[in-house]
Amino acid sequence: MSNDNLIIAGKAYSSRLLVGTGKYQDFAQTRAAIDASGADIVTVAIRRTNIGQNAGEASLLDFLPPSEFTYLPNTAGCYSADDAVRTLRLARELLDDHRLVKLEVLGDPQSLYPNVVETLAAAKTLVKEGFEVMVYTSDDPIIAQQLEDIGCAAIMPLASLIGSGMGILNPWNLQLILERVKVPVIVDAGVGTASDAAIAMELGCQGVLMNTAIAAAQDPVLMASAMRKAVEAGREAYRAGRMPRKFYSATPSSPTSGMIGR
Amino acid sequence: MSNDNLIIAGKAYSSRLLVGTGKYQDFAQTRAAIDASGADIVTVAIRRTNIGQNAGEASLLDFLPPSEFTYLPNTAGCYSADDAVRTLRLARELLDDHRLVKLEVLGDPQSLYPNVVETLAAAKTLVKEGFEVMVYTSDDPIIAQQLEDIGCAAIMPLASLIGSGMGILNPWNLQLILERVKVPVIVDAGVGTASDAAIAMELGCQGVLMNTAIAAAQDPVLMASAMRKAVEAGREAYRAGRMPRKFYSATPSSPTSGMIGR
Amino acid sequence: MSNDNLIIAGKAYSSRLLVGTGKYQDFAQTRAAIDASGADIVTVAIRRTNIGQNAGEASLLDFLPPSEFTYLPNTAGCYSADDAVRTLRLARELLDDHRLVKLEVLGDPQSLYPNVVETLAAAKTLVKEGFEVMVYTSDDPIIAQQLEDIGCAAIMPLASLIGSGMGILNPWNLQLILERVKVPVIVDAGVGTASDAAIAMELGCQGVLMNTAIAAAQDPVLMASAMRKAVEAGREAYRAGRMPRKFYSATPSSPTSGMIGR
Amino acid sequence: MSNDNLIIAGKAYSSRLLVGTGKYQDFAQTRAAIDASGADIVTVAIRRTNIGQNAGEASLLDFLPPSEFTYLPNTAGCYSADDAVRTLRLARELLDDHRLVKLEVLGDPQSLYPNVVETLAAAKTLVKEGFEVMVYTSDDPIIAQQLEDIGCAAIMPLASLIGSGMGILNPWNLQLILERVKVPVIVDAGVGTASDAAIAMELGCQGVLMNTAIAAAQDPVLMASAMRKAVEAGREAYRAGRMPRKFYSATPSSPTSGMIGR
Repeated sequence: MSNDNLIIAGKAYSSRLLVGTGKYQDFAQTRAAIDASGADIVTVAIRRTNIGQNAGEASLLDFLPPSEFTYLPNTAGCYSADDAVRTLRLARELLDDHRLVKLEVLGDPQSLYPNVVETLAAAKTLVKEGFEVMVYTSDDPIIAQQLEDIGCAAIMPLASLIGSGMGILNPWNLQLILERVKVPVIVDAGVGTASDAAIAMELGCQGVLMNTAIAAAQDPVLMASAMRKAVEAGREAYRAGRMPRKFYSATPSSPTSGMIGR
Repeated sequence: MSNDNLIIAGKAYSSRLLVGTGKYQDFAQTRAAIDASGADIVTVAIRRTNIGQNAGEASLLDFLPPSEFTYLPNTAGCYSADDAVRTLRLARELLDDHRLVKLEVLGDPQSLYPNVVETLAAAKTLVKEGFEVMVYTSDDPIIAQQLEDIGCAAIMPLASLIGSGMGILNPWNLQLILERVKVPVIVDAGVGTASDAAIAMELGCQGVLMNTAIAAAQDPVLMASAMRKAVEAGREAYRAGRMPRKFYSATPSSPTSGMIGR
Repeated sequence: MSNDNLIIAGKAYSSRLLVGTGKYQDFAQTRAAIDASGADIVTVAIRRTNIGQNAGEASLLDFLPPSEFTYLPNTAGCYSADDAVRTLRLARELLDDHRLVKLEVLGDPQSLYPNVVETLAAAKTLVKEGFEVMVYTSDDPIIAQQLEDIGCAAIMPLASLIGSGMGILNPWNLQLILERVKVPVIVDAGVGTASDAAIAMELGCQGVLMNTAIAAAQDPVLMASAMRKAVEAGREAYRAGRMPRKFYSATPSSPTSGMIGR
Repeated sequence: MSNDNLIIAGKAYSSRLLVGTGKYQDFAQTRAAIDASGADIVTVAIRRTNIGQNAGEASLLDFLPPSEFTYLPNTAGCYSADDAVRTLRLARELLDDHRLVKLEVLGDPQSLYPNVVETLAAAKTLVKEGFEVMVYTSDDPIIAQQLEDIGCAAIMPLASLIGSGMGILNPWNLQLILERVKVPVIVDAGVGTASDAAIAMELGCQGVLMNTAIAAAQDPVLMASAMRKAVEAGREAYRAGRMPRKFYSATPSSPTSGMIGR
């Protein structure tokens, strides 16, 4: 697999699993789970996690040193383009002119569904300011294309609502996005268990980003290991080229090839 | 994971992926794929594969030495209890009083759906004769229980038709079986890609048996590796205890816990 | 629609919706709901409903006169072939040599899943004794064929467990049955709401039998009307020949025709 | 059912099925199918159908007199807010200051997926100009709310791509919209057969709009009748209050209530 790296904004990563850092018991568990996940890129909610803003408190930077992990500051909790932009400018300062960020602008606090209009506005500003923007969005293929046109570094559609664990509710829309977008498409939000991650990869996504599915499992470290294997399994299955579906083995031409996945 | 072995008829196996040996280009590819799969148990269609019956021909035994793998002779191509029993007696002779076998009695050559009445009859005879019977069957939970009552060593319900690659069409019936049967339940037939195998394990199955999904992939060796990881991922996710599904993250009590899987 | 009758054992019925008579508040509600359903055939649990066995009690016969409805005595609550046969012989006596019956032999009282081995045995006896047997069974296509071979008048596979309202869990198996069986195939058990009934008819089933979906709705009479329309809608859609599925309208040849239904 | 009208922009309609007028063999077939559908509201693609623009040609107005049907001019084929606004201004002129319109602004000619940004812009202008805007959109619940906030008279999310017949790909998103929006929610696009329409209504939608599912059926008039019944069936089932789903009938508290639909 050495040649099958994930390339984002020109940089190669060996793991296709991106993970969040929230919702763990403590930073030690965070570290143990992330180690088990094999992730290179860790996303951090700037509004919730101390990476230096709060001088007296424990800092995530001590447990996940930026020398070992690629930080992906995110705008969780932002409901407007302005808020999101301001939050990422702060992250840039805190992390020594760090440019790779995750943009999310949410529509309401109950559903946490993205507000795509505000997301488009924020993406425009951030790209102009030199950020490399990995953008959380809905599974709307036209919006996905517009975000790519603006210059986003990765398109990250939801599988289902943040924190829901409902899996991929509409693989068809993901397929529409995959057919249209050339930058990496990374499923972000909604993965609940290992097979969800495998399915995302089998559809042809370039990676999966998750947090709750690992942190809220009964055994987060074991689940992190499961997710690592699931992402690799799904990627390998995608590359291996699955057998055709055929309702009857004996009648290979039976017309079931149109079902989702490949 | 060292303590999480698959136990069949009192013997422990480290891999929960069981694989077939047919449909490959040649025995060398068979061996390469099985190595990549990490399987301990390999199933062999006695009516189709030479393990000594045809003296002059290449024998599978040379490529997959019984010292390295546990052979599981099967009755593929049998449509009656008599045929199946006769076939497995022959296997027992060819393999030095080997007792662990896979029984399948099919209903018709088009669907390859099991004939459960003939399967029950064959299972009775074989158990009486001292065979350790891993039995391919439908996803009928009452039949599954009857097969266990007869003394079968493992119940192996279909996910979907043999060679179809359609995945798990009725997870609810698998769940009914898992709630009723104490011997290992191993999904056999219908797995098409990695996520299918992961889902089977997440449901709580003890293992997965497959052949076409690996052999008919465009790259069988890479798919074998994918399947190995998928089975491990699904097993670990099952043991780790997945997060609860909740349609809204913000309303944790919302009633979506009833969906399939755990 | 006048020519599109349901033919069972040589007799024509204008409604393709068959309904149960249990679980209602009282016989008056039973009657109102059945009137709204438009059903010709009503099934009666001989072990639970008084049709004359209990001389002093109110009798269903007074509310649903056999002159207006075709009675279909059933063996709900029977767990062996013997019990079922005995129950239907009693029904035959009570109903003046009535021959059209519904056979069901269940596997256990929790799942109410059919015991197909006992069902086969009972069907053989009943057919030999001149009954016209409409038989409740699993969705096993081989068993369905065996029941037809025995001489059953209609094959009635489950959609999901009795009383579950889970809808059609495995349309693929129904399709296998529909391809194999020439007598009417009527989905029996598991329908929960109107669309479930429509889907059964769109698959090509000849009818739908239900009880709980109507009786346990908040407004049983209105739900009975919904079911009447749903069965007619599904039947008409089946006869009308649905549009092909195509993922993109603009690329009519895209391969999605293999999904279930027609 | 006399009190269960569909109310749009203050006006009551007895049918909850809205139909298109395109893709038929000729205007006579259009009329026959629409009669069978029972629809009150018929939508007309101003760019494709002659309602007076082309003086010498047959006009739809002669076959579907505006005295009998409520016309709903639509902007099929428009890819920008400007185009859509211009088209509906033309329709207003042609139809004597008619105000009830269907707005659709598409993202690309292959997918026909809505462009929600342009749709929002057009909706703002049209509402300001006094139009009563029924708006075709994606199943994005935040966008749906924004369209309601602008003053649209009905929100019409897709079930799946226009002309695809794929049914409701993401009922969860429809549910999010239904929980947020107070004006009528009408599923528009993607319905393929009768059960799809019934499901939309069972989810709580106020109506269904379709064209291809009827016009491209093998027998459009019979399919129109099926759709009429399916919409009524789904609506009645919704009002009747379906039975709870429970995996086992015998254990009524088993946790399956979270599945989609009610």
